[in-house]
Amino acid sequence: MVSIGVDVMGSEKGLKEAVKGCVKASQKRDIHVVMVGREDEIKEILRKYPKRILKKAKFDIVNATEVIEMTDEPFSAARRKKDSSIMVALDLLKNGEIQGFFSPGNTGAVVISSVLKLGRLDKVSKPALVTVIPSIYGFRTFLDVGASIDLEPRDYLLFAIFGKVFVENVLRKYKVRIGLLNIGEEDYKGPEVLRKARELLKEKLGEEFVGNVEGYQLFLGNVDVVVTDGFTGNVVLKSSEAASKALSSLMKQEITAKWYGFIVGGLMKIALKGFRKKTDVSEYGAATLLGVNGNVFIGHGASSAKSIKSGIVYAAKLSQVNLNQKIDKILSGMGEI
Amino acid sequence: MVSIGVDVMGSEKGLKEAVKGCVKASQKRDIHVVMVGREDEIKEILRKYPKRILKKAKFDIVNATEVIEMTDEPFSAARRKKDSSIMVALDLLKNGEIQGFFSPGNTGAVVISSVLKLGRLDKVSKPALVTVIPSIYGFRTFLDVGASIDLEPRDYLLFAIFGKVFVENVLRKYKVRIGLLNIGEEDYKGPEVLRKARELLKEKLGEEFVGNVEGYQLFLGNVDVVVTDGFTGNVVLKSSEAASKALSSLMKQEITAKWYGFIVGGLMKIALKGFRKKTDVSEYGAATLLGVNGNVFIGHGASSAKSIKSGIVYAAKLSQVNLNQKIDKILSGMGEI
Repeated sequence: MVSIGVDVMGSEKGLKEAVKGCVKASQKRDIHVVMVGREDEIKEILRKYPKRILKKAKFDIVNATEVIEMTDEPFSAARRKKDSSIMVALDLLKNGEIQGFFSPGNTGAVVISSVLKLGRLDKVSKPALVTVIPSIYGFRTFLDVGASIDLEPRDYLLFAIFGKVFVENVLRKYKVRIGLLNIGEEDYKGPEVLRKARELLKEKLGEEFVGNVEGYQLFLGNVDVVVTDGFTGNVVLKSSEAASKALSSLMKQEITAKWYGFIVGGLMKIALKGFRKKTDVSEYGAATLLGVNGNVFIGHGASSAKSIKSGIVYAAKLSQVNLNQKIDKILSGMGEI
Repeated sequence: MVSIGVDVMGSEKGLKEAVKGCVKASQKRDIHVVMVGREDEIKEILRKYPKRILKKAKFDIVNATEVIEMTDEPFSAARRKKDSSIMVALDLLKNGEIQGFFSPGNTGAVVISSVLKLGRLDKVSKPALVTVIPSIYGFRTFLDVGASIDLEPRDYLLFAIFGKVFVENVLRKYKVRIGLLNIGEEDYKGPEVLRKARELLKEKLGEEFVGNVEGYQLFLGNVDVVVTDGFTGNVVLKSSEAASKALSSLMKQEITAKWYGFIVGGLMKIALKGFRKKTDVSEYGAATLLGVNGNVFIGHGASSAKSIKSGIVYAAKLSQVNLNQKIDKILSGMGEI
């Protein structure tokens, strides 16, 4: 049995949706959920659940009186709101009462609170959020998608190592190919910090490092891990998601406007099901925070009950892998970085 | 008649393809092309053209002995290769012998050579490359997509003004809505330079500035101009192009693998034609360099004859608009920036 703490107050879609996701996830074999948030409000929602569902669900509730809102400035919120659902859950994680923590809330606040409460791994200056994206050659590992900005060259090296450990332990692929996101493949391209990072990665990673990769290689190139800073990663992730959505939506408009639309539309729906299966990243229902002392997972702010459920299931799976422990072991064996 | 100089040596697809594009463009009414490059090699290629085609074409050849390769480091190449096709063409532009310059070559080298040869507009520290992208609400103006990195807050303000002038004079849309690309809409988000830029844009642009916009708003949001630095813009542009390509390719694979593939495939092709018309940015066949004293346009490195032709046609159209002159006029009326 693995116990996952959930910040039920953080979701943009509200507490009811979050509780629904928790109850669903806790019905899975071997998953125990600890809902962290305003106890009375959670209990009020649970009162409406049929007994037969609650009977199969395995959960506890831990009270936390404060809520960090999406619009809260992360640094001050993390310091000021000591009894927030995020901080209380991180306490449980630190004390070993839960094995992993999942939040669909304010990313910045979860990152900062995790660093404050759990501490960073030895040798790590900044944590990274890693996610999985579909490409024409299968899944890619992409980081950092929003934890840390203004990196030093050595942060890129550490992120590359994080990515490698992720691919080997989660995607179970070896001989990892790592690329550094830049505006050109040539050595002289990009800002100074990336030119220095490129040198460092070349020196320390050897053949696993393929060099600079351009934006298009994220979805069309042959690399396993793409490393960048949290600003670039976040903007790239959101804009390429939106480009795909816009493309689908424009195609749909065009197709349904035609007389044969209903034929193509119907058949396309069937084909799209297969397509979605291949590219569905909901199996990777959360981004994983790497570089801190503990298993922390962050979901999309506007998570539905279904995505909260898959986020928790994913968190349960990955908490048993203990990526941060594995990274720590590798880093401590590496000498000076 | 508008005269456009073309760097025929710069294309990755070779001189023959570039010459073909020039000949095609010069058959258009009111377009005169000046091919700049190795004269003997250009003439050798032209020798194989039928007379009836050459008769309709309106072009000259200007000799330039040196070539800046795609892999050349832009700064040193611009300084070292004084007789490159880029430098010779920029001389023609400066002397008024051509009204615009189009290059499908090394972007960095064209930008730096343009700054060196033509100079920047008054008050401008860094130039920007502007491009047009399709979104679900029509076309978006996006800059900088690769000219300048490591910006100051005031560069973002200048880029916003460039974008506004572009939308008003090229897309003919007024009441322009300008957004600053960032990782969140809240004021405190992103690196310090963007927090300062946000303040400055708010102060100087008033209602036209909508604030921070996230990556997804590029393709799904309601803004006309999205402003960012050349690193982020380039990576976002290339990755979102690739995301769309990967999506189309994966969908095609899925559809053609099914028994009904040939029906859907055939009908989809027809629908896609209409779709492409709506989203086709080839009408905007080049990126426009803004902030320098002259009309400079940059095409994709791997441009085919067809894209070179549309790049030249676009350059001819925009050279008559003289965007940089219009920007200069606005900036000089603005007082201290």
